[in-house]
Amino acid sequence: MRSLCVFKNLKSRYAMLKTAILGGSGYTGLELLRLLSLHPDTVVIEATSRQHRGKKVSEVFPSLSGFYDRLEFSAPEDFKNIKADFVFSALPHGASQEVVPEVLKSCRVIDLSADFRIHDAAVYRAWYGEHKSEALLKDAVYGLPELHRAKVKDARLLANPGCYPTGAILALAPLIKAGAADTSSIIVDSKSGVSGAGRGANLDTSFVEVASGFKAYKVGCHRHTPEIEQELSLLSGAGVSVTFTPHLIPVERGILTTAYVKLKKMMSGADLHGLYDEFYGQEKFVRLMPPGRFPDISQVRGSNYCDIGVYADEKKGTAIIVSAIDNLVKGASGQAVQNMNIMAGLKEDTGLQSPPMAV
Amino acid sequence: MRSLCVFKNLKSRYAMLKTAILGGSGYTGLELLRLLSLHPDTVVIEATSRQHRGKKVSEVFPSLSGFYDRLEFSAPEDFKNIKADFVFSALPHGASQEVVPEVLKSCRVIDLSADFRIHDAAVYRAWYGEHKSEALLKDAVYGLPELHRAKVKDARLLANPGCYPTGAILALAPLIKAGAADTSSIIVDSKSGVSGAGRGANLDTSFVEVASGFKAYKVGCHRHTPEIEQELSLLSGAGVSVTFTPHLIPVERGILTTAYVKLKKMMSGADLHGLYDEFYGQEKFVRLMPPGRFPDISQVRGSNYCDIGVYADEKKGTAIIVSAIDNLVKGASGQAVQNMNIMAGLKEDTGLQSPPMAV
Amino acid sequence: MRSLCVFKNLKSRYAMLKTAILGGSGYTGLELLRLLSLHPDTVVIEATSRQHRGKKVSEVFPSLSGFYDRLEFSAPEDFKNIKADFVFSALPHGASQEVVPEVLKSCRVIDLSADFRIHDAAVYRAWYGEHKSEALLKDAVYGLPELHRAKVKDARLLANPGCYPTGAILALAPLIKAGAADTSSIIVDSKSGVSGAGRGANLDTSFVEVASGFKAYKVGCHRHTPEIEQELSLLSGAGVSVTFTPHLIPVERGILTTAYVKLKKMMSGADLHGLYDEFYGQEKFVRLMPPGRFPDISQVRGSNYCDIGVYADEKKGTAIIVSAIDNLVKGASGQAVQNMNIMAGLKEDTGLQSPPMAV
Amino acid sequence: MRSLCVFKNLKSRYAMLKTAILGGSGYTGLELLRLLSLHPDTVVIEATSRQHRGKKVSEVFPSLSGFYDRLEFSAPEDFKNIKADFVFSALPHGASQEVVPEVLKSCRVIDLSADFRIHDAAVYRAWYGEHKSEALLKDAVYGLPELHRAKVKDARLLANPGCYPTGAILALAPLIKAGAADTSSIIVDSKSGVSGAGRGANLDTSFVEVASGFKAYKVGCHRHTPEIEQELSLLSGAGVSVTFTPHLIPVERGILTTAYVKLKKMMSGADLHGLYDEFYGQEKFVRLMPPGRFPDISQVRGSNYCDIGVYADEKKGTAIIVSAIDNLVKGASGQAVQNMNIMAGLKEDTGLQSPPMAV
Repeated sequence: MRSLCVFKNLKSRYAMLKTAILGGSGYTGLELLRLLSLHPDTVVIEATSRQHRGKKVSEVFPSLSGFYDRLEFSAPEDFKNIKADFVFSALPHGASQEVVPEVLKSCRVIDLSADFRIHDAAVYRAWYGEHKSEALLKDAVYGLPELHRAKVKDARLLANPGCYPTGAILALAPLIKAGAADTSSIIVDSKSGVSGAGRGANLDTSFVEVASGFKAYKVGCHRHTPEIEQELSLLSGAGVSVTFTPHLIPVERGILTTAYVKLKKMMSGADLHGLYDEFYGQEKFVRLMPPGRFPDISQVRGSNYCDIGVYADEKKGTAIIVSAIDNLVKGASGQAVQNMNIMAGLKEDTGLQSPPMAV
Repeated sequence: MRSLCVFKNLKSRYAMLKTAILGGSGYTGLELLRLLSLHPDTVVIEATSRQHRGKKVSEVFPSLSGFYDRLEFSAPEDFKNIKADFVFSALPHGASQEVVPEVLKSCRVIDLSADFRIHDAAVYRAWYGEHKSEALLKDAVYGLPELHRAKVKDARLLANPGCYPTGAILALAPLIKAGAADTSSIIVDSKSGVSGAGRGANLDTSFVEVASGFKAYKVGCHRHTPEIEQELSLLSGAGVSVTFTPHLIPVERGILTTAYVKLKKMMSGADLHGLYDEFYGQEKFVRLMPPGRFPDISQVRGSNYCDIGVYADEKKGTAIIVSAIDNLVKGASGQAVQNMNIMAGLKEDTGLQSPPMAV
Repeated sequence: MRSLCVFKNLKSRYAMLKTAILGGSGYTGLELLRLLSLHPDTVVIEATSRQHRGKKVSEVFPSLSGFYDRLEFSAPEDFKNIKADFVFSALPHGASQEVVPEVLKSCRVIDLSADFRIHDAAVYRAWYGEHKSEALLKDAVYGLPELHRAKVKDARLLANPGCYPTGAILALAPLIKAGAADTSSIIVDSKSGVSGAGRGANLDTSFVEVASGFKAYKVGCHRHTPEIEQELSLLSGAGVSVTFTPHLIPVERGILTTAYVKLKKMMSGADLHGLYDEFYGQEKFVRLMPPGRFPDISQVRGSNYCDIGVYADEKKGTAIIVSAIDNLVKGASGQAVQNMNIMAGLKEDTGLQSPPMAV
Repeated sequence: MRSLCVFKNLKSRYAMLKTAILGGSGYTGLELLRLLSLHPDTVVIEATSRQHRGKKVSEVFPSLSGFYDRLEFSAPEDFKNIKADFVFSALPHGASQEVVPEVLKSCRVIDLSADFRIHDAAVYRAWYGEHKSEALLKDAVYGLPELHRAKVKDARLLANPGCYPTGAILALAPLIKAGAADTSSIIVDSKSGVSGAGRGANLDTSFVEVASGFKAYKVGCHRHTPEIEQELSLLSGAGVSVTFTPHLIPVERGILTTAYVKLKKMMSGADLHGLYDEFYGQEKFVRLMPPGRFPDISQVRGSNYCDIGVYADEKKGTAIIVSAIDNLVKGASGQAVQNMNIMAGLKEDTGLQSPPMAV
């Protein structure tokens, strides 16, 4: 195949949205590039990479050969000259806050790092340390469309949710919103594929170390805890406390979250299912499983769906909610595109209609 | 999400091609359903399944929930009433030949089984046994578009190539066509992911049996051998003999083929690369790697690409050609859609433009 | 290698214990054969298999070529003539209870099925249905040596614990025994490798279906729940209720259990660790991790260890206990050998001293 | 479990062999520690590690908790003071040759690096560059016991074979020795698990990069080529040329080698099998498969076996030989222990009798 953008002729001739990616050579960067190649209304005009500056995208990612063949990774400092409609920052936590204020002067920003997700500066400091652009925290919109669609539309700085929080909040929101949960004893037991740890040379995520393993990590101290608690507390109208334990699954993609909720008053399985159906019935990207069925991360792989299954133990007064997402899509880059669509006034699922690749 | 075809409104209002799938609940069936959901000009009007007749597609394949929600698997015998433009037969070898003659009366057929790939009835019998529709063998077109595009266009019965043959033939075609290979000593060492064995309850392909394994199988006797030899002989103009050994890789998808060819006369690495570039330069779905780089099955996953890398050992007079395909896409369902596009006069890559999902 | 038992000359000349295996061609059978080949004081005189009767062990399990080369699988009904010191029953649930009464007449039995684990016949019926040898339930000893070592010693019918219960009970026993847990709200979130589903042709455990997946199954209704509750209630002296959710990990072996316990009164991390150190300090097969470290199933693979890590959330008053076992060893065949050693008056770790194969 | 060496009391009281490991914190180091813990006649008195000096072995390798609990990794420069009967060098290529001359003054050395495998200094330089202890090349014994048992016995410096060469040479030796092979056209297509790349932080061997992949690498230029050619040439009595292509399998352990040999004169399948049976019939660690069966890397996992299957294509005059080893055992640390046993006058399989862990 000669170097051609096979999509060029698919894209409409009218002015397309210009997008740029900061930190484009990690897994969320790769996933943005993959998803945006499927988007009919955008063009990627720039992607930066410290490690791969000057290299063609298809040299770093051979899977993309034939796509983006004229695009080379530019230097990190080139962010200053970007004139795009939307800038996706896929920079690491801490790095994003250093450049976002400058970028915001000329572009709307969708930040995939944790830098702008926490509204309360004191909470941010307690979990992450000093913030270099603290003033922006209050302006940033937490981009979980299913909860904050109206605010997302007008956001200038959008904080794209964390992968674990996306799965956990979507699993719990209906119960919390309905006031049906004992909010002092929520257990969130989550399991993530390895791509959640990012792309890099690291013994802890090397094939041999993890391929036959399964373990809990950061028990009691993972930084996604305050993000989950913030959003559930907003829904509840009062403080919600969550015990959150992440685990590592030897798969590339996917997060399964098993949430345990003590119910304030008895609820039948049918009632519980009805509550979720009511809450998510109009949502394009949440698929409620039929009663008695539960999600599998393989069934959402590569897609922006969050699949949810619910169970009520009527004897014990406990609800078990299981959610599955692809951490790189609904947990990161897909949700970022979904947010961009809303911000741009496009149909929310534009470019996100591919079915999961289950096998 | 309420049950909607999210794609409905993407599909143009003018008459779309009607397609049907026989044996739709295996992996090639699932892959056809996945790929056709991305195709703007087709609609799937029927899919049969012996095991799952009467069940909704999304019940059997939860990944497709939200797609095909009104489609139920029909009974195998319903093939008789299908009025479609194209019928894909994903039935097992042997079963296809029983129904194809009838289906051909009213529809064009793209057969993914091995039933119509071998032109020579005697060869067929030697490797597969009696054929129930032997007369059709001479009419069927072997649907490797890179070699037989013109014939494909007018085919009424298209024999979609086998997964191993696709990778092997594409790896070897330029050398054979150029008369550069010693055709008496070609070695084809292929390695396939587990989905190549089909979808079914089988101890040999159960997770625990294969997850840490790697083995050769059907050494010296795999039925894809005559198919490879048939096509290479056609290219060569004389008999080509191939030693073919398949192996099982513990991955879901992908075939890597390493082919060893004794060169008739010396050829430099640059010459070899040039030969392949010349042969495949205009092909949409063959990506020749830069000199010194070789393909990885992960880099074509989910896509219709065949990636090829070449190496000439000038001292030993040997060429090593490595090709990678996704066995379910270019090795089966994707190539079937590519063939349908050609047969229907559509752009060859319609619905097949998604980049690989490397990670 | 010519067929020799490479171990023959290692085994002492004095009378060795004769053992037999009923249902020897599944994964627990294979694991018993592997472990017993390492045992200096036993010889396997018979192994039955419905499916493989008449075949050599090394034909069914090529890994064991060179071991047991004179042993052929005998027919299921041959159990009647077995004259062994110990008979391991690795038959499926339900099948074991049909033959154990007869076998008990001449041999001590270690039963790896669920048939004799539940003491209360009414509970058994509620979860499993009618029992064909109900009278034996009260005689069977539940063979978790860390809790019932004295009784194990004299058992004639030993009920080897289930895989999930082993991990869950060992994780929770110290807290329950100390009366420190709120026994009304215990959450046991367990994750198991695929071998736990047994050896057989089954689409649900085929490679392609599970390799990229992760899911919960039998939510709220897994039959290991009453077994866990029985043993914890015995420890507690009162009824203990457990919410138990099993999940499937795409690995061959291993169970990780994450247990959440509401503490009755505050306990520091150091106190919690001390409690576990006290409880398990003398146990050969329980390894308490240093404070702040948590187990990984890969680190116990192939061994009889149960690794445990503990965490106290002093703010929330919650303890998180994580345990890891190899489901085929400590969760089945290894524990069976450990029990046999105790019953035979051997050192408890005889034949079980191999370190885990972490990589 | 309190810290005890569970093996202490197994080991005889008479003077045991003192062993030391240089570079003990990689995968071959870990495997030596695992295997030596099973060896009744040795004790590990020292293990060095640049990265982990001062740490306990069980802190670096939690799987070994309960074994070696008094052993801490010492500094690399401590090699100078080692007084051991056998020193295993598991240092990287190039590093070994810097320390071995010094160590040889007081200890016999088994070197697992490539530093002393090539006899011809010119060949070494061509593939590896300058050698710092070139004079030792001619003294070193190539430790493939099946070929050089007598020399191994008296070796002071033993060069432990490479992983790929072990599998390739054992596959080809009988045919080469018998003069039955056309030695100008041998193809060795090998596939290795990821642990062959060593233990370290490396993007190329990270889980996400390799888990769904399969690729050829170092096509035409892998450094194991001259090692294979050296040994086959010695067997042949004339120069043997090999085309060798390594591939990466997404498993932790194992090498499968598929070798293709043009036969000088026709040979039946039975003749070929007989030739191998004759050659390896007395070998403890080579298991010839029955006719028609071929090895799987899972069936040798964790063991020192090399399983071999053979096939003769009588029509094409080609032999296909497939061998399987565990790259960390027969391909590295197990073979090192086998060599030590021979050098020490022990039974060759001492400490190496565990069956494979196929599942």
